[in-house]
Amino acid sequence: MDLKIFDRMESEVRGYVRSFPVIFKQARGSVLVDEANNEYIDFFSGAGTLNYGHNNPILKKRLIEYLNTDGLVHGLDMATCAKKHFLETVERVLLKPRNWQYTLQFTGPTGTNAVEAALKLARQVKGRQNVISFTHGFHGVTGGSLAVTANAKFRSAAGVGLANTTFMPFDGYLGTDVNTMAYLERMLDDPSSGLDHPAAVIVETVQGEGGVNVASKRWLKELERLCHQHDMLLIVDDIQVGCGRTGNFFSFEVAGIKPDIITLSKSLSGFGLPMSLVLMKPELDVWKPGAHSGTFRGNNMAFVTAAEALDAYWTDSTFADETARKERLVRDWLENLVHSYPGAGLSVRGRGLIQGLATSGRNDMANQIARQAFRHGLVIETSGANDEVLKILPALTIEDDLLKRGLEVIEQSVAHVLASEGASAHVFKFGGNKR
Amino acid sequence: MDLKIFDRMESEVRGYVRSFPVIFKQARGSVLVDEANNEYIDFFSGAGTLNYGHNNPILKKRLIEYLNTDGLVHGLDMATCAKKHFLETVERVLLKPRNWQYTLQFTGPTGTNAVEAALKLARQVKGRQNVISFTHGFHGVTGGSLAVTANAKFRSAAGVGLANTTFMPFDGYLGTDVNTMAYLERMLDDPSSGLDHPAAVIVETVQGEGGVNVASKRWLKELERLCHQHDMLLIVDDIQVGCGRTGNFFSFEVAGIKPDIITLSKSLSGFGLPMSLVLMKPELDVWKPGAHSGTFRGNNMAFVTAAEALDAYWTDSTFADETARKERLVRDWLENLVHSYPGAGLSVRGRGLIQGLATSGRNDMANQIARQAFRHGLVIETSGANDEVLKILPALTIEDDLLKRGLEVIEQSVAHVLASEGASAHVFKFGGNKR
Amino acid sequence: MDLKIFDRMESEVRGYVRSFPVIFKQARGSVLVDEANNEYIDFFSGAGTLNYGHNNPILKKRLIEYLNTDGLVHGLDMATCAKKHFLETVERVLLKPRNWQYTLQFTGPTGTNAVEAALKLARQVKGRQNVISFTHGFHGVTGGSLAVTANAKFRSAAGVGLANTTFMPFDGYLGTDVNTMAYLERMLDDPSSGLDHPAAVIVETVQGEGGVNVASKRWLKELERLCHQHDMLLIVDDIQVGCGRTGNFFSFEVAGIKPDIITLSKSLSGFGLPMSLVLMKPELDVWKPGAHSGTFRGNNMAFVTAAEALDAYWTDSTFADETARKERLVRDWLENLVHSYPGAGLSVRGRGLIQGLATSGRNDMANQIARQAFRHGLVIETSGANDEVLKILPALTIEDDLLKRGLEVIEQSVAHVLASEGASAHVFKFGGNKR
Amino acid sequence: MDLKIFDRMESEVRGYVRSFPVIFKQARGSVLVDEANNEYIDFFSGAGTLNYGHNNPILKKRLIEYLNTDGLVHGLDMATCAKKHFLETVERVLLKPRNWQYTLQFTGPTGTNAVEAALKLARQVKGRQNVISFTHGFHGVTGGSLAVTANAKFRSAAGVGLANTTFMPFDGYLGTDVNTMAYLERMLDDPSSGLDHPAAVIVETVQGEGGVNVASKRWLKELERLCHQHDMLLIVDDIQVGCGRTGNFFSFEVAGIKPDIITLSKSLSGFGLPMSLVLMKPELDVWKPGAHSGTFRGNNMAFVTAAEALDAYWTDSTFADETARKERLVRDWLENLVHSYPGAGLSVRGRGLIQGLATSGRNDMANQIARQAFRHGLVIETSGANDEVLKILPALTIEDDLLKRGLEVIEQSVAHVLASEGASAHVFKFGGNKR
Repeated sequence: MDLKIFDRMESEVRGYVRSFPVIFKQARGSVLVDEANNEYIDFFSGAGTLNYGHNNPILKKRLIEYLNTDGLVHGLDMATCAKKHFLETVERVLLKPRNWQYTLQFTGPTGTNAVEAALKLARQVKGRQNVISFTHGFHGVTGGSLAVTANAKFRSAAGVGLANTTFMPFDGYLGTDVNTMAYLERMLDDPSSGLDHPAAVIVETVQGEGGVNVASKRWLKELERLCHQHDMLLIVDDIQVGCGRTGNFFSFEVAGIKPDIITLSKSLSGFGLPMSLVLMKPELDVWKPGAHSGTFRGNNMAFVTAAEALDAYWTDSTFADETARKERLVRDWLENLVHSYPGAGLSVRGRGLIQGLATSGRNDMANQIARQAFRHGLVIETSGANDEVLKILPALTIEDDLLKRGLEVIEQSVAHVLASEGASAHVFKFGGNKR
Repeated sequence: MDLKIFDRMESEVRGYVRSFPVIFKQARGSVLVDEANNEYIDFFSGAGTLNYGHNNPILKKRLIEYLNTDGLVHGLDMATCAKKHFLETVERVLLKPRNWQYTLQFTGPTGTNAVEAALKLARQVKGRQNVISFTHGFHGVTGGSLAVTANAKFRSAAGVGLANTTFMPFDGYLGTDVNTMAYLERMLDDPSSGLDHPAAVIVETVQGEGGVNVASKRWLKELERLCHQHDMLLIVDDIQVGCGRTGNFFSFEVAGIKPDIITLSKSLSGFGLPMSLVLMKPELDVWKPGAHSGTFRGNNMAFVTAAEALDAYWTDSTFADETARKERLVRDWLENLVHSYPGAGLSVRGRGLIQGLATSGRNDMANQIARQAFRHGLVIETSGANDEVLKILPALTIEDDLLKRGLEVIEQSVAHVLASEGASAHVFKFGGNKR
Repeated sequence: MDLKIFDRMESEVRGYVRSFPVIFKQARGSVLVDEANNEYIDFFSGAGTLNYGHNNPILKKRLIEYLNTDGLVHGLDMATCAKKHFLETVERVLLKPRNWQYTLQFTGPTGTNAVEAALKLARQVKGRQNVISFTHGFHGVTGGSLAVTANAKFRSAAGVGLANTTFMPFDGYLGTDVNTMAYLERMLDDPSSGLDHPAAVIVETVQGEGGVNVASKRWLKELERLCHQHDMLLIVDDIQVGCGRTGNFFSFEVAGIKPDIITLSKSLSGFGLPMSLVLMKPELDVWKPGAHSGTFRGNNMAFVTAAEALDAYWTDSTFADETARKERLVRDWLENLVHSYPGAGLSVRGRGLIQGLATSGRNDMANQIARQAFRHGLVIETSGANDEVLKILPALTIEDDLLKRGLEVIEQSVAHVLASEGASAHVFKFGGNKR
Repeated sequence: MDLKIFDRMESEVRGYVRSFPVIFKQARGSVLVDEANNEYIDFFSGAGTLNYGHNNPILKKRLIEYLNTDGLVHGLDMATCAKKHFLETVERVLLKPRNWQYTLQFTGPTGTNAVEAALKLARQVKGRQNVISFTHGFHGVTGGSLAVTANAKFRSAAGVGLANTTFMPFDGYLGTDVNTMAYLERMLDDPSSGLDHPAAVIVETVQGEGGVNVASKRWLKELERLCHQHDMLLIVDDIQVGCGRTGNFFSFEVAGIKPDIITLSKSLSGFGLPMSLVLMKPELDVWKPGAHSGTFRGNNMAFVTAAEALDAYWTDSTFADETARKERLVRDWLENLVHSYPGAGLSVRGRGLIQGLATSGRNDMANQIARQAFRHGLVIETSGANDEVLKILPALTIEDDLLKRGLEVIEQSVAHVLASEGASAHVFKFGGNKR
């Protein structure tokens, strides 16, 4: 395919077009189609934006209806019918059944805008500047969010110093025998640790960009306890792993914690439309009118599809149960794969339908596997500080058949890459009968 | 209309819903319709996002076609047919005719993301941290952009210090007899002025949020000269007044300058869809792959409508000429109005179809006028440091009839507010015959 | 003289040894003696540290007595007899006669430590981060002070961004017809000027390092008014021009203002010993015990000489009157000199015994004059952003004879430098008889 | 004694006068005398400034001679005979015997000025902003030094955010079984740890203010290795524990490391006079002339005594051997004391003649002991994040008799405090015969 115009006109900053150097034309559910009508299975899902698949027909139908009636597309934060319906749906589907009270803030519709608002709010509420973030955390690349994002690739592009953040080791960062939460507690208790009293802690329950690192339930509960004890707000950035990615709508529910502030985006609209949301405990709402603005903070088309998605998938536990079932399928498959190559340094981690196949990091192996998989029609990316983790992120709505076909491509790609390294499977039987 | 759910569920940060406390249902061109089927003329245009009107039928048709063929909605920065077509259209319609070469960067689709990218790029290119911005400048509310935004309302919400920016007086800030560019030159020439050598200057040619302050052509040319002389990049933030708002597609063309970096957003998609773009001179493209990311940086629906808008309105000068004609209409009307109240402290300023009716700032007069206008079916906002400027910002596509009806509402509202103040028009003849 | 060991062992950062490349052995009053027994008249006074001359015999006597009785030399901020006596003397000689109440803070004994403490205090009191400083201002080179110091030579050595300061134009910076205080007022009144509400303003009444720029009394009074009006603290940094340099003990007395915080150092000990002091209005003393520390904050030898200096010179107005007399002598001489070269671009400015002979800045003229003067036995330095001002800074105790001899050297050096440029004096009569 | 004038005139920031509420009149060696002629043994030594005792007669003699010949007292960084002699002595006594090459920078004469210069230099050399410091580290309270100082008491007084520093756990901070250097290595190796690549690491080999925490030799060597491997400069802040405090002149010699930059102050002059010095490897000397300045950076009286101290104490190993002998004496005594109270939570740590008696931190016990000791004529302070460590810091020149008398007072004071808590010594035999 002719990508010349991209090379000619687009900045060197472009990324995914390098990993998947074809021109995509159409997409339905978990299948992408390129200009030459080749099909690809999507295990990437727009980095977590397409939990309900591409062009989800339920949502698309509602969207076209809305356009056909000349509903408002853009309205800043004026009241619209679409927004009203979204608010009612959030209250009915998400908050009331959980007996939760959260106040909603609509920010500019990208995840980083929500993170910026959350950090501002926390700092205003507590009157302090410092915030704790974690190793391998990713929260966005605008000034405020970038300061709490760990990756040097992004940080070094800032061109300015990034202040007011202290990075602490995430769960497991120092190995399984060091409790990193005990270290944080030591730092907080010690008036001479150098840690300026933080306004808040911002955390992902599963670090997507950071390499599919999973925070244990216990670690999260300990974190919540420390936040209460030391008068810090707990912000869960659920942009990538919220909206059902790990099973429940909110990823932190499994740990039984209740954050002070929650950020949502990515799959919130359900259709790939830009949309972001901050949920805050009502008593934290110290905002002054208009003090955080943004031209696109009321993306009404997204309100339409987001409300529809909540009604279609989240009025009972069916969808979450289905994700749990698929999680087991994927997990079993991957663990089997790992056990097939005992000396290869592979391992599996994840929660729900975000699963990582971690490699040793040697020889750019995970990227090799991803490239090989793409050659065989699977769109999949890597993550982690050194791109050492193959990140399995299919749509939650993916059909079992496609899911298995995708996993088979991974299996074959792993085999191919390891074989070219001289490794061979301990027990290496592809084949449908075991699944 | 029942706005209770907005009061109950939405943060105090909400803004425009307070100014226009109705629930909007539909919008076509320059007319908004609320739940009770009341109609409103739109002189607000989504703060400059809807230069081609609401639900522009040309664009809508293409958008629905795209959706019906299951074109990719979300694709990060993978190559898609929609993106390819947009790139080709930009090259053909915008760059080639001007004999310009600019490289394109697609950032997260809100204006502030584009500003963040522009500032990062400038700082990386020059290896310096400081940036010059101007009094009353507005560039967004995320960390990096907020630092170059002048308004204390936004700045004080940051909760952290905002560094690496020096504010200089905009054109006219110190009165007509002080050349603020001479002051900037003095500061740059003087090694002991306290001004850390800036990487760049960021400027709006007409400050929309700041109160419709217009930079003269000469001032802009002087600024470009200083940038060259002192090795600083010139960034024109054309988010609000680009895309034809002042006549030409780019607002700075009138001054004959050529910025190093340009930011676009708001009306770029033409349909109110989130989209942003950074244009940089090719030699500045020092970005490393993936160093500035963002989940929604490839809003394909916006690519579709944006390309269509360029083809529909910008292949010849017809549209710009039409804007110039309407500018004269509005300007004449407003100046007539000002002359009608010689002692009232009113004045007019603007360029193209962004025009400000400046009041003395006394008694919250501009807001009173806007509120009165809304009662009579006109959606219009104020701007300026103290909301002292009524901001006339109709769609560029507005029909003359609606435009005049809107201006009449302004005239009546001014009369009403001044009357309640005891003022009366010197010569006060409403009446269609003069126009 | 053999300066090799300085070249070999001392960092390139060394400065004055380059201007005066001899090795000094002794010093008495206003005369320096080098290793080869050459004598030099001192018009430099340790950059304002030696207002009472080198090895002032009154102070030296007391100091040796103190040493001979084994008085405490170092005691941190423990109470000592020497400190007690100093406190009593300050109260009796400085505060009571003026009917002033100020609380004293002893910081580390360098001027910059006092400035750091003053800035911290102001920020704590007001709970704001920003501080206003002025073009050409110099307040020290440690992190906090450096941020309010204007000169790029010092700023660029920081290696980090310097934040929380806004530089405003000093009196006269934009020419005689622009009132820079009106500009500051505009910025403070305007909520969208970009100026973050400052905790304080820090100012020198005469900028020594900045080029002997004199703030008018009216400008200082206006500044005080703005500080009160906008709830900002007024910090007068009197480190260089306090302790009698301009006539009165405090340089700001002439303007009838009363700063909230005053910093003193340099000539405070009177003997060239490191000593610094912060004076604050008692109600501002929000310090917590030990929150600002420093190993040498109680330099007891300096307490001894400082108290003695107050008693010897400041119990009545004799000394200030004497300074005024010498000021007129110097001023007349310099103005006569300037009038002698009408086209040479020379001018005079100053207050008390800090006087500047400003050159056009062409051909490094001021440095040439200073070098020529040194060849003829006068130690004198230049100041200003481009070293364009010859800075006349003799001891206040200088004998008339030495003072005149020094001025004669200047006259001859100016003549020499201008002659080598082809200029010649309009009326050029050296000679003692006119004075 | 009448301390009223201190209460009336001095800021609440005053500290040691609260711990030792008497007025000191004289001091000789290790004995202080108050106004009422009470004598006190000094185990405090001006927080490490008086390693050679108060009014050391060798140094005093030279100082008075210098004053009597009218040697220059103040000369900024002009060359003087006193400075020349100091340079020669440093070269002869310190550098040549070790076969070291270091370039000297004379900063403002307080420790924090030296630290500021060291940090600036490191950042300039490496072109990076971040610096690593350690938990419980203390490096001064001016802006730049404060940012690398861990204690919240000092940090919170800044009134601004303190940026560009990452605090890492010091040796032993996470208990004896966690190698904190391995954690630092992990952070440095990981491009997504959030750690911005540091220009330098600043460390004390024994943390004086931080609670007498001793870095092991192995930990220091590992730190040096990491610095080389990751292109960071190693700055040893030897202000408190250099100048022989731990035995050798430089505290780090015991570990066999060679820092890139060394800061010295406190006991450098030997007489309690303000003096500071930065030593840098010659290739790091990127300073531009005058880029770091300071009025008192050439304290000539301090040059005189400092050179004399080097000659008197450091031309052979006698003095260091003597310190080692006294260390054993103190250490044995303290360990015996600790063993006497097995359940009391006491422990000993230190190196050379800086030894800490660590308490459990319960009931402000260390402060109680210090207060009790002062009642019995011993001046001693506490340190540590919670003042939980009694800090034994006698002059290195202390006579054995006074040293033992001081230790006896400690013993009795511990007994007194523990007794009032109901504790009693396991084996509790005061008495000279065991020593």
